[in-house]
Amino acid sequence: MDRVPAVPAASTAFASDNAAPAHPKALEAILAANDGTAASYGGDPITQRAAERVKELFDSPNAEVLFAFTGTGANIIALASAVRPWHEILCSDIAHCLLDEAGGPVLVSGASLLALPSDDGIIDPAVLDRRITRRGDVHHSQPRIVTITQSTENGRLWQPDAIAEFIDHAHDLDLLVHIDGSRIANAIAALDVPPAQAVGDADIVTIGGTKNGMLFGDAILVRRPEHFTGIEFVQKQIGHLASKHRYVSAQFDAMLADDVWLEAAAHANAMAARLSTGITGLGLHLSSPTEANEVFVDLPAEALSAVRQRFAVHSPDPHKLAVRFVCSWATTDDDVDTALHALSKAQDRIV
Amino acid sequence: MDRVPAVPAASTAFASDNAAPAHPKALEAILAANDGTAASYGGDPITQRAAERVKELFDSPNAEVLFAFTGTGANIIALASAVRPWHEILCSDIAHCLLDEAGGPVLVSGASLLALPSDDGIIDPAVLDRRITRRGDVHHSQPRIVTITQSTENGRLWQPDAIAEFIDHAHDLDLLVHIDGSRIANAIAALDVPPAQAVGDADIVTIGGTKNGMLFGDAILVRRPEHFTGIEFVQKQIGHLASKHRYVSAQFDAMLADDVWLEAAAHANAMAARLSTGITGLGLHLSSPTEANEVFVDLPAEALSAVRQRFAVHSPDPHKLAVRFVCSWATTDDDVDTALHALSKAQDRIV
Amino acid sequence: MDRVPAVPAASTAFASDNAAPAHPKALEAILAANDGTAASYGGDPITQRAAERVKELFDSPNAEVLFAFTGTGANIIALASAVRPWHEILCSDIAHCLLDEAGGPVLVSGASLLALPSDDGIIDPAVLDRRITRRGDVHHSQPRIVTITQSTENGRLWQPDAIAEFIDHAHDLDLLVHIDGSRIANAIAALDVPPAQAVGDADIVTIGGTKNGMLFGDAILVRRPEHFTGIEFVQKQIGHLASKHRYVSAQFDAMLADDVWLEAAAHANAMAARLSTGITGLGLHLSSPTEANEVFVDLPAEALSAVRQRFAVHSPDPHKLAVRFVCSWATTDDDVDTALHALSKAQDRIV
Amino acid sequence: MDRVPAVPAASTAFASDNAAPAHPKALEAILAANDGTAASYGGDPITQRAAERVKELFDSPNAEVLFAFTGTGANIIALASAVRPWHEILCSDIAHCLLDEAGGPVLVSGASLLALPSDDGIIDPAVLDRRITRRGDVHHSQPRIVTITQSTENGRLWQPDAIAEFIDHAHDLDLLVHIDGSRIANAIAALDVPPAQAVGDADIVTIGGTKNGMLFGDAILVRRPEHFTGIEFVQKQIGHLASKHRYVSAQFDAMLADDVWLEAAAHANAMAARLSTGITGLGLHLSSPTEANEVFVDLPAEALSAVRQRFAVHSPDPHKLAVRFVCSWATTDDDVDTALHALSKAQDRIV
Repeated sequence: MDRVPAVPAASTAFASDNAAPAHPKALEAILAANDGTAASYGGDPITQRAAERVKELFDSPNAEVLFAFTGTGANIIALASAVRPWHEILCSDIAHCLLDEAGGPVLVSGASLLALPSDDGIIDPAVLDRRITRRGDVHHSQPRIVTITQSTENGRLWQPDAIAEFIDHAHDLDLLVHIDGSRIANAIAALDVPPAQAVGDADIVTIGGTKNGMLFGDAILVRRPEHFTGIEFVQKQIGHLASKHRYVSAQFDAMLADDVWLEAAAHANAMAARLSTGITGLGLHLSSPTEANEVFVDLPAEALSAVRQRFAVHSPDPHKLAVRFVCSWATTDDDVDTALHALSKAQDRIV
Repeated sequence: MDRVPAVPAASTAFASDNAAPAHPKALEAILAANDGTAASYGGDPITQRAAERVKELFDSPNAEVLFAFTGTGANIIALASAVRPWHEILCSDIAHCLLDEAGGPVLVSGASLLALPSDDGIIDPAVLDRRITRRGDVHHSQPRIVTITQSTENGRLWQPDAIAEFIDHAHDLDLLVHIDGSRIANAIAALDVPPAQAVGDADIVTIGGTKNGMLFGDAILVRRPEHFTGIEFVQKQIGHLASKHRYVSAQFDAMLADDVWLEAAAHANAMAARLSTGITGLGLHLSSPTEANEVFVDLPAEALSAVRQRFAVHSPDPHKLAVRFVCSWATTDDDVDTALHALSKAQDRIV
Repeated sequence: MDRVPAVPAASTAFASDNAAPAHPKALEAILAANDGTAASYGGDPITQRAAERVKELFDSPNAEVLFAFTGTGANIIALASAVRPWHEILCSDIAHCLLDEAGGPVLVSGASLLALPSDDGIIDPAVLDRRITRRGDVHHSQPRIVTITQSTENGRLWQPDAIAEFIDHAHDLDLLVHIDGSRIANAIAALDVPPAQAVGDADIVTIGGTKNGMLFGDAILVRRPEHFTGIEFVQKQIGHLASKHRYVSAQFDAMLADDVWLEAAAHANAMAARLSTGITGLGLHLSSPTEANEVFVDLPAEALSAVRQRFAVHSPDPHKLAVRFVCSWATTDDDVDTALHALSKAQDRIV
Repeated sequence: MDRVPAVPAASTAFASDNAAPAHPKALEAILAANDGTAASYGGDPITQRAAERVKELFDSPNAEVLFAFTGTGANIIALASAVRPWHEILCSDIAHCLLDEAGGPVLVSGASLLALPSDDGIIDPAVLDRRITRRGDVHHSQPRIVTITQSTENGRLWQPDAIAEFIDHAHDLDLLVHIDGSRIANAIAALDVPPAQAVGDADIVTIGGTKNGMLFGDAILVRRPEHFTGIEFVQKQIGHLASKHRYVSAQFDAMLADDVWLEAAAHANAMAARLSTGITGLGLHLSSPTEANEVFVDLPAEALSAVRQRFAVHSPDPHKLAVRFVCSWATTDDDVDTALHALSKAQDRIV
């Protein structure tokens, strides 16, 4: 009897860097950490070591380091501890905390979240001046912290000069600065600068582990703890103080050693560059320049539909005919070739 | 050359079941799940399988299942989705959500949390009548859900009859019922009943994975989803929707298979029973009866201090001279003997 | 002995309609209500009568009516009762609830507040389509209610056709509609339509008393109570359930009778029209058309400074050289002439 | 034609002091304040004068003074500005903020509210020691402020020595102290001490105007503003910054002058004393001693029902057969005689 072949499910190869499996070093670290009982809630030696490593890499000897399970959790902890409910949190118009955290930062902080116009997530410092206008006016919520993303949600980089200038200007305006670094490793690898330069003088930085290759986990580097009083309570209040804490910190300890994290990120970036070059070679148009590990490509409607049948890729802006391909530490040349082949076929269909 | 021997750090062997390492089955499941890319945020087949397993075990075919990273996260998600800010959440006077979640359920829900008198966490149904008095009075927050813990924070069991009666009575009073099951496996194993009987007709149950032997992870079994509208948004809003979701669900999938979870819990219970018997044999007094995997023992001040130098054990009530020993899947006979020896020595010192 | 004459303080004549004194009818009503003891919290007959009056005037027999002390309070009560924390409240980019309530609606509701582009507060229905894009996506907060202001913060009117079309479209998109009617009387008087036509099929309407001539007080007309469950609890939770309730409702009872409210508003509108005509006669430019009781005029920097020394008028947008003159029930022809004289003098200075 | 006489509605004479009409002085002050335009939101001279009067009377030259519309609003503003969401607010087990504000302080602050055992609202300082046990423990919310009520919800007085000792002890424990003074005038009049002595060294005091005879309005005396940063934003965020602010402050200005407020309160206290004496003369039992303007009397079930048909009096504790009679500035000897007569008749019925 004939059977209709099942339609193959769309490939998750480029769906997101969080569709990737865990990096072997992260898994090894977990296995190694699984040795007898250990003090819970971060009182264990692995956590101490991982925290020291984060501080050293980011040149922040006086910082405090906390770990959270997810990037959303880490962002909320960083932002909510900085504000009171009459404050404003400023972010870009494509910020993850604005569009993809279901309003979590607003709920937990009670503060308002305001979007600033940006170029792919890069905000002109002059935009801040236009927003900071009613200081001390009791009728108006008061801007307290601005969050930027490195690399941005559209795969762009804040250059070290630009980020330094932006942060200086924000500080002049009496704003704290948070960096959402859910892809900070990709940014550091792409910029090829020391980590501290990729984040400038930011007051608090979240450092993404999950998208970099861990099973889960983001670190929070609190460089000016005096402005984030009670941050450890916020971490606890939303259930992100891990009890068996060693399993999150061990991954950081291992990935941050010997540049593992940066090599993983550099590989993802290289795969994205290869894909991006191939795509422009096909005559297709990039929606945003490829600067880290994400490739955004415009597609005619029919091609877009064909690509979507083949790949579970995301369209960040529902009003645009474009899709996003994300590369990870685990993306292979074959994956890239398969994607290019599919894009080429989709394009043929519409010519 | 003589060296002063370092004072050995206090042992974490009985500090908590979350000081224990991860169960081999949980680790194996993670390794097995680490295969290629997978749909994130729970769209993967392992998550579907684990959810089915939870529903089947708890005899809840129409339930929904979510996973969270921690018990605190799971409790908050369950409770906050049930209420609006003018509601009240009722709990026992020793509830984890009251004493050990830093006010997280209150912050996230905006609702009030009210403690009810209890006997080691077991609440008399009549207590509810005394609290439910101003229904519809706009000046007074309105009780909406009651949360109980199985096994309780003091290591006690709700017997199937008692929990059934309590839940019926709560339902009669128009209250929803949540079970904090961070140690539900210990309860089920100790009661030796089907899981559904250990939780009765509760509307929502959180099922602890971490204390049962996982690296992290608690499940939320939503049996009456119509009363927890938007629960998946709350999960996302506090950062507990795992991106690489398979690593939490794979552990549940493996531990819930073939009674692994119950055997792990039964072992912990057996170790606690052995320790408890030994302690009473020493002539010491238990603060609470040992019914699951926790042993609470009263100690004279001097003995308590000696025991604390040896074991990093917790004193739940700072006003009492008592400590808590928690056994886990990994506790050994040797661990128990060491503890008994130390207790015996501490006792000698004071005689 | 010579004395330096004191610089006269800037006149508050046009500062706002809330700088005006109370209307005689409001005061008389309070005096008349001050008769013996009365049931508190709205259980008195005056409150019942005032509520009936509101419902009848707005052709809403099945509505519920609540009273609040301020427009900010009324807006918060209306909006917060409509949403849960993963919802979004949509508003115009000049909305009072966005710019002038210090983030109160966000704090009390836990929900996000999103600004939509507008023309002086009038929002094109098509703008809603662009914002309603990720229905059911758990990563994204869900639009639930849109609030518009009649007359708008820039003194513009929603025409009956326009408001009907906007509300229909919002309902088609599964949005509730709130009207901030802190100056609804001015709108109704200017449009010269029945009140119900000025608010269309909105689900909830706040009706400003303070700016209309009362000492304090705004009403909340809940036309679809099923979508605002618990609204009376929100009112209580932010302290807006008046104990001596008759003093707020008596004012509404009196002002809404015999068209007092509309005559007061029509007078304010007429004074604004007179001022506006005078201003354009001076060759000055209006920032926004004058349609109700507010006049916005552009001024060169030097003239603006001179006008400010004379009048305590507000500049809604700190980036523009413009000021706002607000007329009230108490504004006189002399007041208008004085303002025109001052503007003429200020203008001379810069020619 | 015979008509069945209507059953007379229950009298509100003793329902609450907020069932009373407004004091003539409060009304006169409002009429006098109604003179031309005035700066809104508290920028007017009457508000300045009233604030100075409050500071002077309470011997607090460096304090700040805010006004709110209601006691609930004032309590929320005072408490919410003192805490962050991981803090605890402590109160007595009969506190208005616990039982009669619908959870408002919890919602607005995000913090937990914990009840302490008390004797009619008077809390033993030693109770604080038992509650302050886990300082700095990130798992546990941190007590930050304790609120007490003078006179208490059960009509009792904190004696100057007792309140001084309590506040000292709270300060020693690193707690701020708030006094809910919704009936502070009754307490001061009853204690016959200077206002400052009736509130001791409290950090913040709310001063009830409504129950003292105003139409509405409570003042907030912020004696240590450094601990209540942003309090003016909280006031605005819940809609309690009056726009036509003079109408609240004028009442305070007038009532606080020439001891009007204390005479009004003393009269209410005297009426309560007369009623209380009469009640015990009837052989009935007082549930709480009568020390200010409230009388609590135990009644057998049948008598209670008869009294309720006659008087709209409140039973604070639904589990007790008792009712509360509240006297106000407007209570007359006749009112008291009528109540005593009704109680006597109700008592007869059951003998």
